Amino acid sequence: MAHSGEGLADVQSSRDDRGIALDQVGVSDLKYPITVLDREQETQQTVAEVSMSVGLPKEYKGTHMSRFVEVLNQYRGEFTMHTLPDLLETLQERLEAEQARIEVEFPYFLKRTAPVTEKEALMDYECSFVGEKNGDDSSFILGVTVPVTSLCPCSKEISEEGAHNQRGNVGIQVRSVPNEEGAPTMIWIEELVEMAEVSASAPLYPLLKRPDERHVTMEAYQNPAFVEDITRDMAVRLKEDERVAWFHLQVENFESIHNHNAFAEVTWEK
Amino acid sequence: MAHSGEGLADVQSSRDDRGIALDQVGVSDLKYPITVLDREQETQQTVAEVSMSVGLPKEYKGTHMSRFVEVLNQYRGEFTMHTLPDLLETLQERLEAEQARIEVEFPYFLKRTAPVTEKEALMDYECSFVGEKNGDDSSFILGVTVPVTSLCPCSKEISEEGAHNQRGNVGIQVRSVPNEEGAPTMIWIEELVEMAEVSASAPLYPLLKRPDERHVTMEAYQNPAFVEDITRDMAVRLKEDERVAWFHLQVENFESIHNHNAFAEVTWEK
Amino acid sequence: MAHSGEGLADVQSSRDDRGIALDQVGVSDLKYPITVLDREQETQQTVAEVSMSVGLPKEYKGTHMSRFVEVLNQYRGEFTMHTLPDLLETLQERLEAEQARIEVEFPYFLKRTAPVTEKEALMDYECSFVGEKNGDDSSFILGVTVPVTSLCPCSKEISEEGAHNQRGNVGIQVRSVPNEEGAPTMIWIEELVEMAEVSASAPLYPLLKRPDERHVTMEAYQNPAFVEDITRDMAVRLKEDERVAWFHLQVENFESIHNHNAFAEVTWEK
Amino acid sequence: MAHSGEGLADVQSSRDDRGIALDQVGVSDLKYPITVLDREQETQQTVAEVSMSVGLPKEYKGTHMSRFVEVLNQYRGEFTMHTLPDLLETLQERLEAEQARIEVEFPYFLKRTAPVTEKEALMDYECSFVGEKNGDDSSFILGVTVPVTSLCPCSKEISEEGAHNQRGNVGIQVRSVPNEEGAPTMIWIEELVEMAEVSASAPLYPLLKRPDERHVTMEAYQNPAFVEDITRDMAVRLKEDERVAWFHLQVENFESIHNHNAFAEVTWEK
Repeated sequence: MAHSGEGLADVQSSRDDRGIALDQVGVSDLKYPITVLDREQETQQTVAEVSMSVGLPKEYKGTHMSRFVEVLNQYRGEFTMHTLPDLLETLQERLEAEQARIEVEFPYFLKRTAPVTEKEALMDYECSFVGEKNGDDSSFILGVTVPVTSLCPCSKEISEEGAHNQRGNVGIQVRSVPNEEGAPTMIWIEELVEMAEVSASAPLYPLLKRPDERHVTMEAYQNPAFVEDITRDMAVRLKEDERVAWFHLQVENFESIHNHNAFAEVTWEK
Repeated sequence: MAHSGEGLADVQSSRDDRGIALDQVGVSDLKYPITVLDREQETQQTVAEVSMSVGLPKEYKGTHMSRFVEVLNQYRGEFTMHTLPDLLETLQERLEAEQARIEVEFPYFLKRTAPVTEKEALMDYECSFVGEKNGDDSSFILGVTVPVTSLCPCSKEISEEGAHNQRGNVGIQVRSVPNEEGAPTMIWIEELVEMAEVSASAPLYPLLKRPDERHVTMEAYQNPAFVEDITRDMAVRLKEDERVAWFHLQVENFESIHNHNAFAEVTWEK
Repeated sequence: MAHSGEGLADVQSSRDDRGIALDQVGVSDLKYPITVLDREQETQQTVAEVSMSVGLPKEYKGTHMSRFVEVLNQYRGEFTMHTLPDLLETLQERLEAEQARIEVEFPYFLKRTAPVTEKEALMDYECSFVGEKNGDDSSFILGVTVPVTSLCPCSKEISEEGAHNQRGNVGIQVRSVPNEEGAPTMIWIEELVEMAEVSASAPLYPLLKRPDERHVTMEAYQNPAFVEDITRDMAVRLKEDERVAWFHLQVENFESIHNHNAFAEVTWEK
Repeated sequence: MAHSGEGLADVQSSRDDRGIALDQVGVSDLKYPITVLDREQETQQTVAEVSMSVGLPKEYKGTHMSRFVEVLNQYRGEFTMHTLPDLLETLQERLEAEQARIEVEFPYFLKRTAPVTEKEALMDYECSFVGEKNGDDSSFILGVTVPVTSLCPCSKEISEEGAHNQRGNVGIQVRSVPNEEGAPTMIWIEELVEMAEVSASAPLYPLLKRPDERHVTMEAYQNPAFVEDITRDMAVRLKEDERVAWFHLQVENFESIHNHNAFAEVTWEK
């Protein structure tokens, strides 16, 4: 009896009279092993922090939080542009909701080749998916944070030698235009990493031997860039890409001459 | 010569041809000692994490980041609803910008009295100000995160004894209507703390002796509340307050039966 | 030429005259995909944060940081009690060092079965390995943080109904005695999770339906435990385990009636 | 009646038979406004994160956690080398314990003067006190984290122009020898900041105008230093200081060419 839940009151389903519909009700900070698409390896296994929610009509006291985890289980094998629309629809059905939303953050690894010695090692990029479905309308945002080197143009210009440089993060969020079947056009994490790296002073690498270190030191010195420059170069590239419908950029430099950061942001919609 | 900066190139002021205006350019993660208003003590000294930025027209290569810190210095004594409009105007002037923005996050301390023994101690609340000025229009948002106890109504209803409960955070952001002089009507951090605590199962206290612990244990058991309930009770209170023009609520429970959280969100505008 | 590093000065290998040997020199905060042992599935893929270091004799100016990443690459397939001794030896050789050390932190996932409905889902546990080798002596510490429910015995005793409870973390670090081949005796993450859960008021689960929620609510109410109790019960269990040579316990409760935590710690050596 | 706690069972004081004494039992993650000593301004108000604990003999079931907050209240005005010994003694008495311990972490602000324009602004340093008392023996450790610029000697040597540089943290913990009254000899936070800055490639500043930026860029280029170098220079300075009885150093560089950090550590005792 108790086993099936029969006989136990369903408090969540009781009526609410306060007249307040809630935009989102759900679970957050849930860690889960996931599989994502990898341009070279087909798929990649990683670990995600997941948030899932639905809109709650004003009539219902609460939502059934355990169903989020059940839906997550059902799809655990894959979190991709292909499965997310389906997962959101399942959330709508299982939670009896008009709106459903999922946010997934995960480290993604790419094999990087040192520029001179060609030694290979893996480097991590923080990535995210945000999928939303409202009735039949859905939206999908891909996020990537690309760590780069930035070298200050002002410091280089006004100093007789040297120039301050530092690690910075190029934060990119992109929504693509729908393809013929109405699904979002594919944009690879790898493509956004490449765009960010050519917009900065130099890429970061997991493994650099001395000839490589010489190479990236001089590459950065020859390509000075403010946070403003990196943001604008990245914006120009994304605007020219026909697949991109919307983007938000936030570039942040961990200034090597200050204990605070410099940042620039821009949002664009086609 | 070099002392005055004369003779050193002003790279930031050089012309940019990429045609990309930036929404925000500035400094972030800057720690600073500040003074804020305190309903009982008049003022309170605390420590803030500050972010300041301006919009950058497409014609200019960069902004002059050091000026943000100069403006911050100039106002260091006070960060209040009274000084923020002025500080934003100074940012507009010094940075020659149409839009200026400041975000300030800080712990705020209130003396709390235990409910039975009346013993007093200080408790911390994470607070924030976000001020924006665009031309002559300005906006000001006050944020407070109030930690509370929530006791699960479902767990209480279906169990013969006990009920799972946990610490939760009631995150509140409020924009008030302008008063006669066009400045935002005053809403005290203390008022938002009180509203959040009566919306939850019980308040948290820094210091509880046994008679107090007995009191709050039973108070929570008699006031079960889902995250949905806390969010709605809080929303009802804020909607009834004539000073409130807009609010965003996010309530999060650190579930004692799960390793993930439950949350609810709602945004409202008059 | 530059390709091979020949002709580029080896600054790190130059002589140092300050007379200060360094305990540890290395790389930290390095993210890497790893494979660890899983009692049920044989192996599990996850993502780690890695720190690797060696002792630096007083004669040398610096260590060759890129070699740490090269060694990490070489072993990337596996981070286990079986491969760690070998990896530490490789570090000693490649870095020409007497002492070598590696710290690996990673989330580990276990399939958990709800106590009544028997529904299954994955739950995460933060784990760590710390391996050290000094000459021929090596040491290996396994760490697991097990989130649990704790219900306050005082609150239950003094209140007419209810009792405050909360999520808590049982932090365990264990060094095992050497087996016949001199390697550390195997202790499974799964075993430490089980010990921690029976020491607390109730386990946490990723997925609970209402009959399960009823079960864990009442289980916690019937098993009140202070942080002191959980620490001692866990200590008793570990002391009785013949495989355990040393342990450190830190139990922390995220008190649902306070905005601060309660904790207890104990270290023991056979 | 309940008001005074009479009539309510004192569960913590009941007898424990498991035979496990606990090294530490207490409260953690407690935020509190504090006053510390300031070499120039006499005192400085800031905000601390506090942890307080005592040893628990094997006979007692638990400690009385609320007493930690009561003691903290009593001393809230001051956390200094002068008051800490007294506070620890009060903890011993109030908690009836042989050992007492307090850890306090806080941001500390210093007015810094730009090297050329002499413009002033405040910069933050993360600091800590750890005080322990065991019977009549007491120990006191001062900690300071000094952010600095480090410029890579290898990168400078092997490159035709430029050199990678980055923000780094010099983490210092110091225990001083007792003075004539048996109290720890005074060492100022300001002195440790100065030592760390001259050990690195260049100091960080909160406010730099262009002539200043030129100055620090060239200063860093002329003073290349590995993490190993900064650690050793700092170690040499501390060893020569007759007030220092023990120190631990951890220097960490947020490498601008990698997405991981480089670090060095050393511990020394007179």
